[in-house]
Formats: sequence, structure tokens, C-alpha cells
Amino acid sequence: MAMHDETDTLPRLSANDRGLAYGHGLFETLELREGQLPHWPRHWRRLAEGCRRLGLPVPDRDALGGALLAEGPASGRHVLKLILTAGTGGRGYRPPPVIEPVRVVSRHPWPIYPESHTEHGVIVRHCRTRLPVDPLLAGLKHLNRLHQVLARAEWQDEGIAEGLMSDADGQVIEGTMSNVFWIEDGTLLTPDLGRCGVAGIMRERILDWASATGIETLIEPLAPDRLRQADGLFICNSVIGLWPVRRLDNHEMRIPSLMRELLQAVRERAC
Amino acid sequence: MAMHDETDTLPRLSANDRGLAYGHGLFETLELREGQLPHWPRHWRRLAEGCRRLGLPVPDRDALGGALLAEGPASGRHVLKLILTAGTGGRGYRPPPVIEPVRVVSRHPWPIYPESHTEHGVIVRHCRTRLPVDPLLAGLKHLNRLHQVLARAEWQDEGIAEGLMSDADGQVIEGTMSNVFWIEDGTLLTPDLGRCGVAGIMRERILDWASATGIETLIEPLAPDRLRQADGLFICNSVIGLWPVRRLDNHEMRIPSLMRELLQAVRERAC
Repeated sequence: MAMHDETDTLPRLSANDRGLAYGHGLFETLELREGQLPHWPRHWRRLAEGCRRLGLPVPDRDALGGALLAEGPASGRHVLKLILTAGTGGRGYRPPPVIEPVRVVSRHPWPIYPESHTEHGVIVRHCRTRLPVDPLLAGLKHLNRLHQVLARAEWQDEGIAEGLMSDADGQVIEGTMSNVFWIEDGTLLTPDLGRCGVAGIMRERILDWASATGIETLIEPLAPDRLRQADGLFICNSVIGLWPVRRLDNHEMRIPSLMRELLQAVRERAC
Repeated sequence: MAMHDETDTLPRLSANDRGLAYGHGLFETLELREGQLPHWPRHWRRLAEGCRRLGLPVPDRDALGGALLAEGPASGRHVLKLILTAGTGGRGYRPPPVIEPVRVVSRHPWPIYPESHTEHGVIVRHCRTRLPVDPLLAGLKHLNRLHQVLARAEWQDEGIAEGLMSDADGQVIEGTMSNVFWIEDGTLLTPDLGRCGVAGIMRERILDWASATGIETLIEPLAPDRLRQADGLFICNSVIGLWPVRRLDNHEMRIPSLMRELLQAVRERAC
């Protein structure tokens, strides 16, 4: 396994790798904190599901987790990025008879975001780039990510923290790098990801926390109109945690008490 | 530019490359014959269109063509594969302010297929894997190719030369590695690629040859029923040339005279 700190010389990958040629592979972005991977079982579960659907051998959970930990530092907070590809193969789409996956791990400093992102919320916009309806790949964190790249390229304004992406029918699905939740009358709602979108680990943690706390959750379609009438909206991922949205395009939004409660749970690592 | 023969040690690519991380890049598969790239202007045009749509700088046509030729051998027939990526960048979908593309070129022997593929036709099947409707990326030969990989993984039978892929509405669009044409009453038809599919160079050459020869061509939707009633069907790409289909699943097909004429044009390099 190639392991590197972003300040080190980057590892090199065969130009023949199917991850490069076709995006035949998956990735995970994990928190490494004080020599622990606090949410490894969840990440591994998504990775394993991706391996099954893309025809890659499923790695052993404990062996891979151990290998990741063995190479990371025992202190501090870091972002680990794991890429798992279908390995090298000749020219042509046909997978080799035996896939020998290639793993690449990179370590990045844990980013420091302004305190106000969590306290007062961020500004978010709608993207023009549409997510295709694609149940075959929905939910997976695979390496075919041109839609996210093109959506993120739509704005340069540093004051805008995230862009929301809709599917071909105009339903809001997710952010370019995050999942979305909205609140209606004390209920926590998030879009269905059965047709497109990435099933984020933070999204799963929030849904599980809400269930355990007795908060009603619903998975429903999210039309843009519904969003403007919501009591509140937030975005989440494993690195940013949870950011309330204070403005969506020109529409000002509130931070309801349920969102404050959830922010507190994330802060206390109860979520 | 990294250049290699497949028998040489493969060039290595940064594990940080956006081509690997997101599939942010394009490729071309070209014929190199006696030190010439006979269809370079067409390949370059598609590549340039892809660069514009994916936010990559458009390479100079003659400089890139010259660079490809300078590294290839002056004799024999070879396949050149050119990959052009958005280069290295940090973690995150946002493209770097200045993209410095990375080029990787690999050379492969020109494949020798059985003479009977051209003379008597091949066996083709329908794939279950559906192409998502995705006008944003339609036509391009980009690096997000999981659908082709999964479709090609559907069969192992060496007797089946290609699989046809349909879109979400069930319309046949293309083969996993080829474009499709069918014939009805002396007219040459091929599916529209405005919503999905790769706009192949061989497809373009055939359409241009037909126009120049006075043969009527139409771009129309291709429902599976229509295919079974067609006078003939063939698949094409820059490497295989043109292969008539003699059987589609359990349905036997003929090779009409127009297809023989076209095969002759390909043989004589008039197409």
C-alpha cells in the first residue's frame, strides 16, 4: 500500500491502472484522530458494498483498518483519503479475470474552518449541473465524479460554501461534497439516494443519532419549492461535520432548535 | 509526455492526478500506420470539444499530433492510446485555478481479428447495464467509464464479440466499445448520441462516406423491435473497423449489399 503525507513526494501509480482509465474504483475520506479511525466500520461497509457492485474483491475489514492505522501518526487529527482501484489491466473495458486491487492512501491536515460556519451557517447556491438518474451506481463513492467536478467549477466566490445538485427531474439530491438535510415541524428529512447521489457516512450517523434520540426522520423527494418553505437546512460530511445554511441563493434561512441540538451532539461526539 | 510500448516498463502517474481521483480527463484510441495518424484531425476535434466541456485547455492540434508521431515508430501498424487528464490537484472537486494537463500515451500492437468477423459477421448480445441519460457528458470519450466496464463484465463467452447498451428508456445507443448502424431499405441509420453514448470516429467516417457516396443516412431512435426488423446491423470503431452482426442474441441477421459495399470501402481505405 502506498502511503504518503501530502508534504512528501506523492506515490506514483501505473498509467495502466483501471482507476485512471475508466474510474474503475472507489474512495473513502476518513477522520484519523489520535491514532483511531472512529467511523471505520461505517466506511468499510460502504466500501465493501461498492466492491461488490463494481466487481472488486471485498477487503478484510480489520486487516485494511489495521493497515491504515499502522501507517498513520498516533496523535493529532488528520484526513485520510483511501483510493481502491481495480488495478492494472490491458486496453479494453473487460475486467481482468483476476482483479488485484491497488490501494493508495494520502494524509492531509484536518482543515480548520471559520467557527461561524457552524455557529451562524454558510451561504449555499443551486448548481446548474444535473446528476443523471443512475440506480446502478447510486449511493457509491466511486471514481466517476465528473458531475461533481463540473458543478464545483460553476462558482469561484469564496463566500459560497457549497452548491446543491439536482437530478434530471429537478429534485435536489445532495451538495457537490456533502449531503443535505432539511427540517419541517421538528422532523428531520433528507433526500432518497436510490437513483443518484453519494450515501455519506455523516448522513448515516445523523440518521442513526436521530433514531436513537427519538427524533422523527423521513427520506423524501426534495423539490426546490419545499426547500424554500423548510424551517431549516444543513449540509454535512465527515470532514466539515454539519454546517447550517443561512442563505440559499437569495433566500435567508433560520437555524431551528433541532439543528442546534444536533450541532451540540456533533460537538460532543455523540453523533 | 510519457510514451511507452506495452512491453516496456509502464510510466507512472501521480496518485494525486485528477484523472484518477475523479475521471477528470479524456482519451483517444488512434491508428498509427507507417508513421502516420490517418485520422488525427477527427480525433483532435473530439478531444478539443471534450477539453472545452471539461474545462481543460485545448491542446494545439499540430503540436500534439507531431508529439505523438515523434515518439511512435515509423513503420508497421499500431494502436496509440492517448489519455489527457486535468493534472494534479489537492483533495476536493474544485479544479485548480490553472489546469496543467497530464498526457499519457501507450502503444499497443494492432490486433489481428479473425477474417470471418468481417466476412461473415459476429455474434452480439443485449446488455442489462443501462446508460444514464446525461446530455452534459454525451458524445465525449471521457474517463468516467464505469457503465462500459460493468456492461462488458456481463459476459465471458469468447464467442460473443460485443454487447449492445440501451439508455434508461430502453433505446439502443451503442456497443460497449463500438457504435452501431442498421440498414432499412438502402438507408443507413445510427442512433442519436445527444443524451448518452460516445461519438465514435469510425461512426463519423462512415456517415461522411455515405454522404459523399449519395447514400441516405438518418439519425433516429433505435427501439429493440426496430433492430429485429432491420435488413442488417453492424458495429464499428477505429480499431475493429466494421463488423457485420450475424446474430443478435437468438435472432439471425443478414448482411445486405449496402453493408458489403461499405466493407469494401473500409478495406480500400476510401472511408
